[in-house]
Parts: sequence; structure tokens; C-alpha cells
Amino acid sequence: MSSNRIYIFDTTLRDGEQVPGCKLNTDQKIELALALEKLGVDVIEAGFPISSPGDFASVEAVCKAVKDPVVCGLSRSVEKDIKTAAEALKYAKRPRIHTGIGTSDSHILHKFKATREEIIERAVAAVKYAKSFVEDVEFYAEDAGRTDNEYLARVIEAVVAAGATVLNIPDTTGYCLPEEYGLKIKYLYENVKGIHKCTLSTHCHNDLGLATANSIAGVQNGARQVECTINGIGERAGNTSLEEVVMILRQHPYLGFTTGINTKLLNPTSQLVSDRMGMPVQPNKAIVGANAFAHSSGIHQDGVIKQRETYEIIDPLEVGVDQSKIVLTARSGRAALAYRAKEIGQNLTKDELDRTYLKFLEWADRKKEIDDTDLEGIIAEARELATVL
Amino acid sequence: MSSNRIYIFDTTLRDGEQVPGCKLNTDQKIELALALEKLGVDVIEAGFPISSPGDFASVEAVCKAVKDPVVCGLSRSVEKDIKTAAEALKYAKRPRIHTGIGTSDSHILHKFKATREEIIERAVAAVKYAKSFVEDVEFYAEDAGRTDNEYLARVIEAVVAAGATVLNIPDTTGYCLPEEYGLKIKYLYENVKGIHKCTLSTHCHNDLGLATANSIAGVQNGARQVECTINGIGERAGNTSLEEVVMILRQHPYLGFTTGINTKLLNPTSQLVSDRMGMPVQPNKAIVGANAFAHSSGIHQDGVIKQRETYEIIDPLEVGVDQSKIVLTARSGRAALAYRAKEIGQNLTKDELDRTYLKFLEWADRKKEIDDTDLEGIIAEARELATVL
Repeated sequence: MSSNRIYIFDTTLRDGEQVPGCKLNTDQKIELALALEKLGVDVIEAGFPISSPGDFASVEAVCKAVKDPVVCGLSRSVEKDIKTAAEALKYAKRPRIHTGIGTSDSHILHKFKATREEIIERAVAAVKYAKSFVEDVEFYAEDAGRTDNEYLARVIEAVVAAGATVLNIPDTTGYCLPEEYGLKIKYLYENVKGIHKCTLSTHCHNDLGLATANSIAGVQNGARQVECTINGIGERAGNTSLEEVVMILRQHPYLGFTTGINTKLLNPTSQLVSDRMGMPVQPNKAIVGANAFAHSSGIHQDGVIKQRETYEIIDPLEVGVDQSKIVLTARSGRAALAYRAKEIGQNLTKDELDRTYLKFLEWADRKKEIDDTDLEGIIAEARELATVL
Repeated sequence: MSSNRIYIFDTTLRDGEQVPGCKLNTDQKIELALALEKLGVDVIEAGFPISSPGDFASVEAVCKAVKDPVVCGLSRSVEKDIKTAAEALKYAKRPRIHTGIGTSDSHILHKFKATREEIIERAVAAVKYAKSFVEDVEFYAEDAGRTDNEYLARVIEAVVAAGATVLNIPDTTGYCLPEEYGLKIKYLYENVKGIHKCTLSTHCHNDLGLATANSIAGVQNGARQVECTINGIGERAGNTSLEEVVMILRQHPYLGFTTGINTKLLNPTSQLVSDRMGMPVQPNKAIVGANAFAHSSGIHQDGVIKQRETYEIIDPLEVGVDQSKIVLTARSGRAALAYRAKEIGQNLTKDELDRTYLKFLEWADRKKEIDDTDLEGIIAEARELATVL
């Protein structure tokens, strides 16, 4: 637990797959699980076995297909859920049952119509029951983000004593600010008896755009597992983006954390997930969006052409993208124009560049993006003009 | 400056518009500017007038069209840029020239091939020149995120003395962590002479998924203007999302900050921008994504049906969305099935619900989403089955 190796728990196949439109069949789940294994995730949450016969079959098939990662199945703190999860995980080389219960007053009162003490009893019973099937039992305190820290610590201490190995502290509604979430993890790390032989885990949702920042705050305060999904898919506004967390840790080596992810596979994996789930990635998505390494304004293009690091903190190759893109639009300057002209074999003199640039702006004000064919036409027009004058 | 009113500086029409594929014509820029005015933004950055004749015309037209917000034009620290910006802003009721220069060593050495002292001289000259045209001059210290704080403070102090009214501290490459960016703002707020009569501004990029968290950290440490775009569009992975910042401040009233945004217009404005720019919003985008208020897992649906706040921290109506969606998939439970059945006029008895649920799971394992027509078929099938038995 004192190590600085951060475990990546991927829940693309569970929290991601439960999204409208994202449902996968068993073959697709196997395909994605193998891609996640290749990417280097430590834990694959393969599904929620009690939810449907199809999902049970998928979890079972994933267990047979992968060999390195821990395979995890979700359950509520309900015997039949846990038993079904255990059955679905039967063929896993490294099975983990993920069970838990809501701990915020909102969940306790409205969802369970129970008391705080009853919730602790149910949590402990669930962990003990799960423990009768597998050694590795992860407990989630649902809506921990809105659970008061003192009560949360009592719940966690009780389930640690009952044998839980990993403690998941979800910000289920995506409400926390980073400092608040970080302090919550810190409080548990410092106050729960027995926590140091277990792993604290973050599980953040992105309802306010803070899932990534909250996960990092969790890690800085003692969490050693991050639950996340490819492309940040998941219920509502989604989960923490795997690619963002991994690259933040990698780009800030002074933090001293490492993961087992092969970052060169981030983009191919992102595209595979997007394709199989039919869930588009917006062009301006960090790391994996189509524009993440595209430069279009003149100021930026000029800078990147002189020295990539001026506007790019990540080498695109490092995340599996071929190269930075210099896209020509009406906001591009002379440097980008000359660069792209050279790429299509046209070395322009200064005079030619000046004339071509004026012609280019006329075109670009009418058209969103100037491609290579346009550019050839523009250069030809500008040269013709020069001959005429 | 001691006030807790946060000014929203929207740069959808400048940093957003410079993105590949997002270019707008003048009529579209006017349409979006009017929508931003209605939304309640404080400043509209309308464009980069020197970049092209078309953009000059657009900035001029936006100045004529809007009346409440400040209208701002971008320029480099170059006389012809500033003069052109001033000309384009001629008709603005409240004009602002936004000028600046790169201050990180990477920019100074590779982009400008200059010294730190020369950069300060050019910055001061630019602000003084801009000041000869308009009273309200905003200065950006490009790549401030990677500029050392002591030198940055010297630059800012010099331009404040030269008359700058707003000081923009961009994390141009999206590299900073929230605590680092917050400390930068705090350092400037505490160490720059004259800063308290000016406004510090955040301008964050989302290359690592931290733009929103960084902007909030900036506000908590003294910034009173946030630069952002609708849907977080912008160069590469985009800018801070306006909708995320606004809703974080609104949902955390204990922070004590307010904005002038009419949140009910967030979703309509998001859709308008996405449509006019041809830039899709991913379904799992916070606040404005199609799934932001959709619930599909059984556990969540059950909770939301019992009490909305169990899984939703924002009332969809507050951001201009009609209602939460309960979507039926193979991960849905009995509660959601009964709820949706009731909505289509079918009140199921407990026995009927049990039979219908089994039939539903068979269908849902084969189909991504169960719509109302499917559901009617399923209920009819289940009833028929009951009659046969």
C-alpha cells in the first residue's frame, strides 16, 4: 500500500456497458477484454452477472479468455447477487467479487429505508458471504462522495475487519470538488484501522467535469487503485477517463506514480471501444479526440512548426497517434501555409508565399478547411496571377 | 476584485472557432453572439481581426449586434494586430483589446528567440499601444502555466503599471495540476503590485482533462474571470467548458461565488453551437451530453424513481433539459420496467411484472435498448404466456 504503483481498474465493460446504446454481446465483450489486457489494465470489471443471463455468460466468457488481469464481477449486498457473481467468475485465474451498498443518508433513507447500523450489518454480511467464495473482495460504499467521513470510516473499518481487500470510495453523483474528495481519501487512510494492508480505490463520475481531477486528488492522498473507463464512458456524464489519468501520472513524473499501461495502445483501444459500443468520441476529447493533436490557429501552428513542445505536452506517438496535424483554416498564418506547401512538394519563395497567402485567405474565408487539393489550386492561381502582373 | 461575482468570458467565437471544421461565417457569428448575450456571458471574444478579412468583418458585425456584453478582439503584441483589432471593435459599446505574448522559456527561446527582458518590453509596449485606442485592455501571458511564477509576476506587474485592466494567466498547453495552477494565481494575487484594482483571469486548456478543475482552483485563489467555451470546444482538446464551471459554482453555494448565467439556456445554447459549428457533443459530456441525465442501470433507476436526488445532483430543468430519462436495457431492473410500463398506461400486478421481466430480459439481451413499442410487445407476450399456463 505504500508503493507508488497505481492499479488501473477498468470498468468499460460494466459501468461503461450499462449506458444506453452501449450494450455488447458476448463476442464483443471478449474482444474488448483482450484489448484491455493488451493495454495493460490490472483489473477488468467484466459485468454485473445477476443483471441478465446474457451478462452472466459474458462475464464467464471473459474469465476464460483473459489470463493476466484480475476479473471482477459486480453485485449488490444481496446473497443471490453475490452467489451469481461467484458462479460467473468460476473460470477466472484471479477472481474478484465487487459488492457494496449505499452509505449516504440519501441512499440509506430513500433507497433502503434503513438505519446506519443496519447498513453496516448488511455490508459486513455481504463481504463475509463473498469471502466464502473468493479471497479478493472489493467493497463499494455507494455515494461515498456524499457520505459523512466519520460514518464512512466506520463502514470501511467494519468491512476491512470482515475481510475486504479493496475499498472503493465512489463519488457516485460526481458532486465532489478535488480537495474535498482528496480529504475524504486522506481521512480514511489516516483513520481506518487495518486500511494499510488493503487498497483504497477511487471511482469518480463526471457530472460536473471533475472525475479526472478527483481521481488524481484521491491518488495524491492515498488511493492506489483508480476505477475508470476508456473514453470516460459510463452512466450519465460517464466515469473517469482511463487515458487522462494515465497520461497525467506519466506527464508529471515528479508525483512519483507509475501504472502498467502501454500508452501507445491508448488511441487504438479508444477507437475500438467507440466503434464496438457505437459511442462517438468528441473531436475535442483529451488524449483520444480526433483534434487532440491538431493545430489550426496561426499562432499555434507557427510555434509547433518551430518546436513541437511549444504547444504540445504529449508526443502524439506516445499515445498511438501518428503525428501532430497542421490544419489549414482562415486562422492559419504564413508559417503553416509554407509548411503544408512544402509537404506537398511546393517550396515557395517569399514573394510566392505572400501572394499565395492572400489567395489562401480568400479561399479560407469561404471554406472551413483547406485540404491538399485546394492548396494546389491556390498555389497555381497565385502563380498565374504573378505571371499576369 | 474582492467581490465574489465571477465574470464569464466566452471565447467560443475565437478559441472555439479556430478549430478545424468550426469556422463560422459572419451571419453565424452574429447568431451565436446574440445567443451568448441571452445566456448572460459578461465578455464575448468575437475573433482575431488580423487573421483574415472575413474575421475582421465578423468582429465588426458582432460589435454592432450585441449591446450588454463587453466585446473583445484578440491580437498579438504587434502594432498592426492591435490597430486592426481596435478598428474592428469601433462599433462596440464596451470594447476590449486582448493582447499578449508568450512568457515561458519555451516560447521566449523557440518562438521569439528573445530574452526575458525583451519580452517584458514588448508586452508593455503592446499594452500601452492598445490603451491608446480603448480603456479596457486585457493582457495574456501565453503559456503562463509553464512560466516560472517569479518572472510571471514581473511581467504582470509591468503590464499592470502600463494600464492593463484584466490579466489572463493561460495554461496554454493544459499541463498544470489544479493545486499548481491555483498556487500560481495565489502567488500573483499576493505578490503583484496593483493587482487588486485589476481582474485576474483563468484560461485553461483540456489536454489532460483538467481544464475545469484548474479554472475552479484559479477562482478559489483569486481569479474573478473565467475564459471558457460552450461544450469546451477549442484548440486541440479544447478549453474549459462554460457549462461545467457555471454549474460547479452553482451546485456548491458554500464557495460563495455567483455568475450572471441563465442556466436554463445552457442546453439550448450547447445544441445551437454544436449545430452551427458541426462539432458533435459526445453523449457522456457533463451537463450538455445526450446521456447526462439518462439512467440505465437497474440500481440507479430504482434509486431515481424513488427519489431523484439519489443519483442526480442537478435538476435537469435547471439546465434546460426536460426530464431525466429512464432507459430500458438489459441492465435495468423491475422498478424501471414497472415505471416505464406505467408511463405507457400499463399497470402491472406483481405476477405480471415477474413474467414480463423475464420476457424483457430475453429481448434486452438481444437488443441495445427497449423502446415503448418493444415494451408493449413484451407485455402482450408475457400476458399471453400467462393465459396459456
